[in-house]
Amino acid sequence: MQVVVPFAAETPKTRLRSVLSAAERSRFARAMLADVLEALARTGHDLTVVATSPLSSDDDLVGVPSTVRVEVDDRPLTDAVDARLPRRGRTGEPVAVVMADLALATPESLEGLFGPDADVVIAPGRGGGTNALVVRHPDFRADYHGASYLDHRAAANGVGASLETIDSFRLGTDIDEPADLVEVLIHGTGRSPECLRALGFELERTDGRVDTERSLDSTSADSRSR
Amino acid sequence: MQVVVPFAAETPKTRLRSVLSAAERSRFARAMLADVLEALARTGHDLTVVATSPLSSDDDLVGVPSTVRVEVDDRPLTDAVDARLPRRGRTGEPVAVVMADLALATPESLEGLFGPDADVVIAPGRGGGTNALVVRHPDFRADYHGASYLDHRAAANGVGASLETIDSFRLGTDIDEPADLVEVLIHGTGRSPECLRALGFELERTDGRVDTERSLDSTSADSRSR
Repeated sequence: MQVVVPFAAETPKTRLRSVLSAAERSRFARAMLADVLEALARTGHDLTVVATSPLSSDDDLVGVPSTVRVEVDDRPLTDAVDARLPRRGRTGEPVAVVMADLALATPESLEGLFGPDADVVIAPGRGGGTNALVVRHPDFRADYHGASYLDHRAAANGVGASLETIDSFRLGTDIDEPADLVEVLIHGTGRSPECLRALGFELERTDGRVDTERSLDSTSADSRSR
Repeated sequence: MQVVVPFAAETPKTRLRSVLSAAERSRFARAMLADVLEALARTGHDLTVVATSPLSSDDDLVGVPSTVRVEVDDRPLTDAVDARLPRRGRTGEPVAVVMADLALATPESLEGLFGPDADVVIAPGRGGGTNALVVRHPDFRADYHGASYLDHRAAANGVGASLETIDSFRLGTDIDEPADLVEVLIHGTGRSPECLRALGFELERTDGRVDTERSLDSTSADSRSR
Protein backbone atom coordinates (compact mmCIF):
# COMPACT_ATOMS: atom_id res chain seq x y z
CA MET A 1 0.00 0.00 0.00
CA GLN A 2 1.11 3.56 -0.73
CA VAL A 3 0.89 5.73 2.37
CA VAL A 4 0.75 9.50 1.97
CA VAL A 5 1.46 11.79 4.93
CA PRO A 6 0.58 15.42 4.16
CA PHE A 7 2.67 17.93 6.08
CA ALA A 8 2.25 21.70 6.37
CA ALA A 9 5.94 22.49 6.54
CA GLU A 10 5.86 26.26 6.76
CA THR A 11 3.29 27.31 9.34
CA PRO A 12 2.23 24.14 11.09
CA LYS A 13 -0.10 23.91 14.09
CA THR A 14 -1.34 27.48 14.16
CA ARG A 15 -4.04 26.55 16.66
CA LEU A 16 -1.27 25.97 19.22
CA ARG A 17 -0.11 29.57 18.97
CA SER A 18 -1.46 30.47 22.40
CA VAL A 19 1.01 28.07 24.02
CA LEU A 20 3.90 27.69 21.55
CA SER A 21 5.93 30.18 19.52
CA ALA A 22 6.22 29.72 15.76
CA ALA A 23 9.66 28.11 16.09
CA GLU A 24 8.37 25.79 18.82
CA ARG A 25 5.33 24.82 16.77
CA SER A 26 7.60 23.97 13.88
CA ARG A 27 9.83 21.86 16.11
CA PHE A 28 6.88 20.06 17.72
CA ALA A 29 5.18 19.43 14.37
CA ARG A 30 8.38 17.82 13.07
CA ALA A 31 8.62 15.65 16.19
CA MET A 32 5.06 14.43 15.61
CA LEU A 33 5.82 13.83 11.92
CA ALA A 34 8.84 11.72 12.87
CA ASP A 35 6.75 9.69 15.34
CA VAL A 36 4.02 9.06 12.77
CA LEU A 37 6.57 8.06 10.14
CA GLU A 38 8.40 5.74 12.49
CA ALA A 39 5.16 3.96 13.44
CA LEU A 40 4.21 3.73 9.77
CA ALA A 41 7.64 2.44 8.75
CA ARG A 42 7.17 -0.48 11.12
CA THR A 43 4.05 -1.52 9.18
CA GLY A 44 6.20 -2.07 6.08
CA HIS A 45 4.35 0.11 3.57
CA ASP A 46 5.75 2.65 1.07
CA LEU A 47 5.80 6.09 2.65
CA THR A 48 5.62 9.49 1.00
CA VAL A 49 5.57 12.78 2.86
CA VAL A 50 3.76 15.40 0.80
CA ALA A 51 5.10 18.66 2.17
CA THR A 52 4.06 22.19 1.30
CA SER A 53 7.72 23.19 1.01
CA PRO A 54 11.04 21.32 0.87
CA LEU A 55 12.22 19.47 3.97
CA SER A 56 15.87 20.15 3.46
CA SER A 57 17.52 21.08 6.73
CA ASP A 58 18.86 18.54 9.15
CA ASP A 59 16.28 19.67 11.68
CA ASP A 60 13.48 18.81 9.29
CA LEU A 61 14.54 15.22 8.99
CA VAL A 62 15.54 14.24 12.51
CA GLY A 63 13.95 10.89 13.24
CA VAL A 64 12.52 10.44 9.75
CA PRO A 65 13.22 6.92 8.46
CA SER A 66 15.58 6.99 5.47
CA THR A 67 13.18 5.02 3.29
CA VAL A 68 10.61 7.83 3.32
CA ARG A 69 10.19 9.75 0.05
CA VAL A 70 9.51 13.49 0.28
CA GLU A 71 7.48 15.27 -2.39
CA VAL A 72 6.70 18.98 -2.43
CA ASP A 73 3.16 20.00 -3.32
CA ASP A 74 1.95 23.42 -2.28
CA ARG A 75 -1.66 22.94 -3.31
CA PRO A 76 -4.39 22.87 -0.66
CA LEU A 77 -4.66 19.62 1.28
CA THR A 78 -7.68 18.26 -0.59
CA ASP A 79 -6.06 18.79 -4.00
CA ALA A 80 -2.69 17.39 -2.95
CA VAL A 81 -4.36 14.27 -1.57
CA ASP A 82 -6.79 13.81 -4.44
CA ALA A 83 -3.92 13.86 -6.95
CA ARG A 84 -2.53 10.75 -5.26
CA LEU A 85 -5.66 8.63 -4.82
CA PRO A 86 -6.45 5.59 -7.00
CA ARG A 87 -8.00 6.54 -10.34
CA ARG A 88 -9.44 4.59 -13.25
CA GLY A 89 -6.67 4.02 -15.75
CA ARG A 90 -3.92 4.11 -13.13
CA THR A 91 -2.64 1.05 -11.35
CA GLY A 92 -5.10 0.04 -8.69
CA GLU A 93 -2.85 0.03 -5.64
CA PRO A 94 -4.70 1.25 -2.52
CA VAL A 95 -3.62 4.56 -1.04
CA ALA A 96 -3.67 5.50 2.63
CA VAL A 97 -3.62 9.10 3.85
CA VAL A 98 -2.42 9.54 7.42
CA MET A 99 -2.25 12.93 9.10
CA ALA A 100 1.13 14.07 10.41
CA ASP A 101 -0.21 15.09 13.83
CA LEU A 102 -1.35 11.65 15.02
CA ALA A 103 1.29 11.62 17.72
CA LEU A 104 -0.27 8.61 19.47
CA ALA A 105 -0.26 6.37 16.40
CA THR A 106 1.32 2.97 16.90
CA PRO A 107 2.05 0.18 14.42
CA GLU A 108 -0.85 -1.77 15.98
CA SER A 109 -3.39 1.02 15.57
CA LEU A 110 -2.20 1.59 12.00
CA GLU A 111 -2.52 -2.12 11.20
CA GLY A 112 -6.13 -1.78 12.34
CA LEU A 113 -6.54 0.89 9.67
CA PHE A 114 -4.82 -1.06 6.91
CA GLY A 115 -6.48 -4.39 7.72
CA PRO A 116 -10.11 -4.08 6.59
CA ASP A 117 -10.75 -4.83 2.93
CA ALA A 118 -13.42 -2.12 2.41
CA ASP A 119 -13.25 0.28 -0.55
CA VAL A 120 -12.93 3.18 1.86
CA VAL A 121 -11.70 2.95 5.46
CA ILE A 122 -11.86 6.00 7.74
CA ALA A 123 -10.42 6.67 11.18
CA PRO A 124 -12.44 9.66 12.39
CA GLY A 125 -10.91 12.36 14.54
CA ARG A 126 -12.55 14.51 17.16
CA GLY A 127 -14.97 17.09 15.85
CA GLY A 128 -15.80 15.20 12.68
CA GLY A 129 -12.36 15.20 11.09
CA THR A 130 -10.76 12.46 8.99
CA ASN A 131 -7.52 11.54 10.69
CA ALA A 132 -6.66 8.59 8.49
CA LEU A 133 -8.14 7.18 5.33
CA VAL A 134 -7.60 4.20 3.06
CA VAL A 135 -8.96 4.37 -0.47
CA ARG A 136 -9.30 1.39 -2.80
CA HIS A 137 -12.10 2.75 -5.00
CA PRO A 138 -11.16 4.67 -8.19
CA ASP A 139 -14.09 7.10 -8.03
CA PHE A 140 -13.72 8.30 -4.43
CA ARG A 141 -12.65 11.93 -3.98
CA ALA A 142 -11.29 13.50 -0.81
CA ASP A 143 -12.69 16.65 0.75
CA TYR A 144 -10.96 17.87 3.88
CA HIS A 145 -13.05 20.98 4.41
CA GLY A 146 -15.33 21.13 7.45
CA ALA A 147 -16.90 17.92 8.71
CA SER A 148 -14.78 15.73 6.49
CA TYR A 149 -15.75 12.48 8.24
CA LEU A 150 -19.40 12.99 7.34
CA ASP A 151 -18.50 14.23 3.86
CA HIS A 152 -16.22 11.26 3.23
CA ARG A 153 -18.95 8.86 4.33
CA ALA A 154 -21.37 10.53 1.95
CA ALA A 155 -18.78 10.50 -0.84
CA ALA A 156 -18.18 6.76 -0.37
CA ASN A 157 -21.90 6.08 -0.47
CA GLY A 158 -22.24 8.32 -3.49
CA VAL A 159 -19.87 6.24 -5.61
CA GLY A 160 -21.12 2.90 -4.29
CA ALA A 161 -17.95 2.21 -2.29
CA SER A 162 -18.07 -0.06 0.74
CA LEU A 163 -17.10 1.78 3.90
CA GLU A 164 -15.57 0.84 7.22
CA THR A 165 -15.01 3.13 10.22
CA ILE A 166 -12.08 2.42 12.55
CA ASP A 167 -12.69 2.74 16.28
CA SER A 168 -9.32 3.93 17.61
CA PHE A 169 -8.54 6.40 20.36
CA ARG A 170 -4.95 6.64 19.12
CA LEU A 171 -5.85 7.38 15.52
CA GLY A 172 -8.77 9.55 16.64
CA THR A 173 -6.52 11.88 18.61
CA ASP A 174 -5.07 14.55 16.34
CA ILE A 175 -2.98 17.12 18.17
CA ASP A 176 -4.37 20.47 17.14
CA GLU A 177 -5.31 22.49 20.19
CA PRO A 178 -3.70 23.21 23.57
CA ALA A 179 -6.07 20.81 25.35
CA ASP A 180 -4.75 17.99 23.12
CA LEU A 181 -1.18 18.25 24.42
CA VAL A 182 -2.07 16.33 27.56
CA GLU A 183 -2.80 13.25 25.44
CA VAL A 184 0.76 13.36 24.08
CA LEU A 185 2.20 13.45 27.59
CA ILE A 186 -0.07 10.64 28.82
CA HIS A 187 -0.09 8.26 25.85
CA GLY A 188 2.82 9.27 23.59
CA THR A 189 6.06 7.33 23.60
CA GLY A 190 8.36 8.94 21.04
CA ARG A 191 9.85 12.29 20.12
CA SER A 192 6.61 14.24 20.61
CA PRO A 193 6.31 13.90 24.39
CA GLU A 194 10.08 14.34 24.63
CA CYS A 195 9.76 17.62 22.72
CA LEU A 196 6.94 18.87 24.95
CA ARG A 197 8.86 18.01 28.09
CA ALA A 198 11.93 19.79 26.72
CA LEU A 199 9.70 22.83 26.20
CA GLY A 200 8.65 22.68 29.84
CA PHE A 201 5.26 21.03 29.62
CA GLU A 202 4.14 18.64 32.30
CA LEU A 203 0.91 17.13 33.54
CA GLU A 204 -1.21 19.32 35.75
CA ARG A 205 -3.48 17.23 37.93
CA THR A 206 -6.88 18.66 38.68
CA ASP A 207 -10.17 17.10 39.71
CA GLY A 208 -11.57 16.91 36.19
CA ARG A 209 -9.65 15.97 33.07
CA VAL A 210 -5.92 16.36 33.40
CA ASP A 211 -4.38 19.27 31.53
CA THR A 212 -0.86 20.45 30.85
CA GLU A 213 1.03 23.23 32.52
CA ARG A 214 4.23 24.86 31.42
CA SER A 215 7.01 25.97 33.70
CA LEU A 216 7.92 29.65 33.38
CA ASP A 217 11.63 29.30 33.01
CA SER A 218 11.80 26.74 30.26
CA THR A 219 11.30 28.50 26.97
CA SER A 220 11.16 31.57 24.86
CA ALA A 221 7.39 31.54 24.46
CA ASP A 222 5.70 34.18 26.52
CA SER A 223 2.42 32.37 26.90
CA ARG A 224 1.50 29.38 28.99
CA SER A 225 -0.96 26.59 28.41
CA ARG A 226 -4.23 26.89 30.22
CA MET B 1 -19.12 -10.86 34.21
CA GLN B 2 -20.71 -8.36 36.58
CA VAL B 3 -20.95 -4.91 35.01
CA VAL B 4 -21.36 -1.89 37.26
CA VAL B 5 -22.54 1.44 35.83
CA PRO B 6 -22.17 4.28 38.36
CA PHE B 7 -24.71 7.06 37.86
CA ALA B 8 -24.87 10.49 39.52
CA ALA B 9 -28.65 10.68 39.61
CA GLU B 10 -29.14 14.00 41.33
CA THR B 11 -26.89 16.60 39.72
CA PRO B 12 -25.43 14.93 36.65
CA LYS B 13 -23.22 16.60 34.04
CA THR B 14 -22.54 19.87 35.83
CA ARG B 15 -19.82 20.75 33.33
CA LEU B 16 -22.57 21.11 30.71
CA ARG B 17 -24.27 23.87 32.67
CA SER B 18 -23.21 26.58 30.22
CA VAL B 19 -25.35 24.97 27.51
CA LEU B 20 -28.04 22.95 29.33
CA SER B 21 -30.35 23.75 32.25
CA ALA B 22 -30.40 21.42 35.26
CA ALA B 23 -33.57 19.70 34.03
CA GLU B 24 -32.05 19.28 30.56
CA ARG B 25 -28.82 17.90 31.97
CA SER B 26 -30.82 15.36 33.95
CA ARG B 27 -32.78 14.34 30.86
CA PHE B 28 -29.67 14.08 28.69
CA ALA B 29 -27.75 12.12 31.35
CA ARG B 30 -30.62 9.61 31.52
CA ALA B 31 -30.66 9.30 27.73
CA MET B 32 -26.94 8.50 27.78
CA LEU B 33 -27.43 6.02 30.62
CA ALA B 34 -30.13 4.25 28.62
CA ASP B 35 -27.87 4.08 25.55
CA VAL B 36 -24.98 2.67 27.57
CA LEU B 37 -27.23 0.09 29.24
CA GLU B 38 -28.79 -0.96 25.95
CA ALA B 39 -25.36 -1.51 24.38
CA LEU B 40 -24.22 -3.39 27.49
CA ALA B 41 -27.39 -5.54 27.57
CA ARG B 42 -26.58 -6.78 24.08
CA THR B 43 -23.26 -8.16 25.37
CA GLY B 44 -25.17 -10.51 27.68
CA HIS B 45 -23.56 -9.64 31.01
CA ASP B 46 -25.23 -8.93 34.38
CA LEU B 47 -25.87 -5.21 34.74
CA THR B 48 -26.13 -3.12 37.90
CA VAL B 49 -26.65 0.63 37.94
CA VAL B 50 -25.17 2.09 41.12
CA ALA B 51 -27.06 5.36 41.50
CA THR B 52 -26.52 8.09 44.07
CA SER B 53 -30.28 8.23 44.67
CA PRO B 54 -33.27 6.05 43.73
CA LEU B 55 -34.28 5.87 40.07
CA SER B 56 -37.96 5.64 40.70
CA SER B 57 -39.89 7.81 38.29
CA ASP B 58 -40.92 6.63 34.86
CA ASP B 59 -38.65 9.28 33.33
CA ASP B 60 -35.67 7.77 35.09
CA LEU B 61 -36.15 4.42 33.51
CA VAL B 62 -37.14 5.18 29.92
CA GLY B 63 -35.11 2.93 27.67
CA VAL B 64 -33.45 1.04 30.53
CA PRO B 65 -33.56 -2.74 29.84
CA SER B 66 -35.79 -4.52 32.36
CA THR B 67 -33.01 -6.93 33.35
CA VAL B 68 -30.90 -4.13 34.86
CA ARG B 69 -30.64 -4.06 38.66
CA VAL B 70 -30.54 -0.67 40.38
CA GLU B 71 -28.69 -0.19 43.66
CA VAL B 72 -28.50 3.07 45.60
CA ASP B 73 -25.11 4.04 47.01
CA ASP B 74 -24.49 7.67 47.87
CA ARG B 75 -20.81 7.28 48.66
CA PRO B 76 -18.20 8.96 46.45
CA LEU B 77 -17.53 7.20 43.14
CA THR B 78 -14.26 5.56 44.22
CA ASP B 79 -15.81 4.05 47.35
CA ALA B 80 -18.96 2.87 45.62
CA VAL B 81 -16.89 1.16 42.93
CA ASP B 82 -14.31 -0.29 45.28
CA ALA B 83 -17.04 -1.96 47.34
CA ARG B 84 -18.02 -3.97 44.25
CA LEU B 85 -14.62 -5.07 42.94
CA PRO B 86 -13.29 -8.63 43.33
CA ARG B 87 -11.76 -9.27 46.76
CA ARG B 88 -9.92 -12.14 48.35
CA GLY B 89 -12.47 -14.33 50.10
CA ARG B 90 -15.29 -13.35 47.77
CA THR B 91 -16.17 -15.25 44.64
CA GLY B 92 -13.70 -14.40 41.94
CA GLU B 93 -16.04 -13.22 39.20
CA PRO B 94 -14.56 -10.34 37.20
CA VAL B 95 -16.18 -6.94 37.55
CA ALA B 96 -16.43 -4.29 34.87
CA VAL B 97 -17.06 -0.62 35.62
CA VAL B 98 -18.47 1.37 32.71
CA MET B 99 -19.21 5.08 32.95
CA ALA B 100 -22.78 6.20 32.25
CA ASP B 101 -21.77 8.98 29.85
CA LEU B 102 -20.16 6.82 27.16
CA ALA B 103 -22.87 7.76 24.69
CA LEU B 104 -20.95 6.30 21.73
CA ALA B 105 -20.49 2.84 23.27
CA THR B 106 -21.56 -0.03 21.06
CA PRO B 107 -21.77 -3.76 21.77
CA GLU B 108 -18.69 -4.21 19.57
CA SER B 109 -16.57 -1.64 21.42
CA LEU B 110 -17.67 -3.14 24.75
CA GLU B 111 -16.77 -6.65 23.58
CA GLY B 112 -13.30 -5.23 22.92
CA LEU B 113 -13.18 -4.25 26.58
CA PHE B 114 -14.46 -7.56 27.91
CA GLY B 115 -12.35 -9.73 25.61
CA PRO B 116 -8.76 -9.47 26.90
CA ASP B 117 -7.86 -11.84 29.70
CA ALA B 118 -5.62 -9.40 31.62
CA ASP B 119 -6.03 -8.87 35.38
CA VAL B 120 -6.90 -5.24 34.74
CA VAL B 121 -8.21 -3.81 31.47
CA ILE B 122 -8.61 -0.05 31.02
CA ALA B 123 -10.28 2.03 28.34
CA PRO B 124 -8.80 5.49 28.88
CA GLY B 125 -10.80 8.63 28.30
CA ARG B 126 -9.62 12.02 27.19
CA GLY B 127 -7.58 13.94 29.71
CA GLY B 128 -6.33 10.86 31.53
CA GLY B 129 -9.65 9.53 32.77
CA THR B 130 -10.73 5.92 33.15
CA ASN B 131 -13.87 5.49 31.08
CA ALA B 132 -14.17 1.75 31.48
CA LEU B 133 -12.37 -0.82 33.56
CA VAL B 134 -12.36 -4.59 34.00
CA VAL B 135 -10.89 -6.00 37.20
CA ARG B 136 -10.01 -9.67 37.71
CA HIS B 137 -7.37 -9.19 40.41
CA PRO B 138 -8.45 -9.29 44.08
CA ASP B 139 -5.93 -6.69 45.28
CA PHE B 140 -6.62 -3.94 42.77
CA ARG B 141 -8.24 -0.78 44.16
CA ALA B 142 -9.96 1.94 42.16
CA ASP B 143 -9.13 5.63 42.45
CA TYR B 144 -11.15 7.98 40.28
CA HIS B 145 -9.58 11.21 41.47
CA GLY B 146 -7.47 13.22 39.00
CA ALA B 147 -5.49 11.35 36.38
CA SER B 148 -7.15 8.04 37.10
CA TYR B 149 -5.77 6.31 34.01
CA LEU B 150 -2.21 6.84 35.19
CA ASP B 151 -3.14 6.02 38.78
CA HIS B 152 -4.91 2.83 37.75
CA ARG B 153 -1.90 1.76 35.69
CA ALA B 154 0.34 2.34 38.69
CA ALA B 155 -2.09 0.52 40.98
CA ALA B 156 -2.15 -2.51 38.68
CA ASN B 157 1.63 -2.58 38.57
CA GLY B 158 1.75 -2.14 42.33
CA VAL B 159 -0.18 -5.34 43.01
CA GLY B 160 1.50 -7.33 40.24
CA ALA B 161 -1.59 -7.39 38.04
CA SER B 162 -1.27 -7.77 34.28
CA LEU B 163 -2.65 -4.78 32.44
CA GLU B 164 -4.14 -4.14 29.03
CA THR B 165 -5.17 -0.78 27.58
CA ILE B 166 -8.06 -0.65 25.09
CA ASP B 167 -7.65 1.60 22.06
CA SER B 168 -11.22 2.74 21.36
CA PHE B 169 -12.48 6.13 20.19
CA ARG B 170 -16.01 5.15 21.22
CA LEU B 171 -15.08 4.11 24.76
CA GLY B 172 -12.58 6.96 24.99
CA THR B 173 -15.24 9.60 24.38
CA ASP B 174 -16.99 10.52 27.61
CA ILE B 175 -19.51 13.30 27.24
CA ASP B 176 -18.60 15.86 29.85
CA GLU B 177 -18.10 19.25 28.29
CA PRO B 178 -19.93 21.32 25.66
CA ALA B 179 -17.30 20.53 23.03
CA ASP B 180 -18.09 16.80 23.48
CA LEU B 181 -21.70 17.14 22.32
CA VAL B 182 -20.67 17.22 18.69
CA GLU B 183 -19.40 13.64 19.02
CA VAL B 184 -22.87 12.51 20.10
CA LEU B 185 -24.45 14.13 17.05
CA ILE B 186 -21.83 12.69 14.67
CA HIS B 187 -21.34 9.18 16.04
CA GLY B 188 -24.26 8.47 18.38
CA THR B 189 -27.16 6.33 17.26
CA GLY B 190 -29.59 6.06 20.18
CA ARG B 191 -31.51 8.22 22.59
CA SER B 192 -28.63 10.62 23.30
CA PRO B 193 -28.45 12.28 19.85
CA GLU B 194 -32.25 12.18 19.74
CA CYS B 195 -32.36 14.08 23.04
CA LEU B 196 -29.85 16.69 21.86
CA ARG B 197 -31.74 17.24 18.62
CA ALA B 198 -34.99 17.62 20.58
CA LEU B 199 -33.21 20.27 22.64
CA GLY B 200 -32.31 22.16 19.47
CA PHE B 201 -28.69 21.14 18.97
CA GLU B 202 -27.35 20.61 15.50
CA LEU B 203 -23.98 20.44 13.81
CA GLU B 204 -22.30 23.73 13.07
CA ARG B 205 -19.83 23.38 10.23
CA THR B 206 -16.73 25.50 10.44
CA ASP B 207 -13.28 25.19 8.92
CA GLY B 208 -11.75 23.48 11.93
CA ARG B 209 -13.36 20.81 14.07
CA VAL B 210 -17.12 20.74 13.83
CA ASP B 211 -18.99 22.06 16.83
CA THR B 212 -22.62 22.18 17.88
CA GLU B 213 -24.98 25.10 17.75
CA ARG B 214 -28.33 25.44 19.39
CA SER B 215 -31.32 27.13 17.84
CA LEU B 216 -32.71 29.96 19.93
CA ASP B 217 -36.35 28.96 19.93
CA SER B 218 -36.05 25.36 21.00
CA THR B 219 -35.67 25.28 24.75
CA SER B 220 -35.87 26.86 28.11
CA ALA B 221 -32.12 27.23 28.54
CA ASP B 222 -30.94 30.76 28.08
CA SER B 223 -27.43 29.90 27.01
CA ARG B 224 -26.16 28.49 23.76
CA SER B 225 -23.29 26.19 23.00
CA ARG B 226 -20.16 27.85 21.72
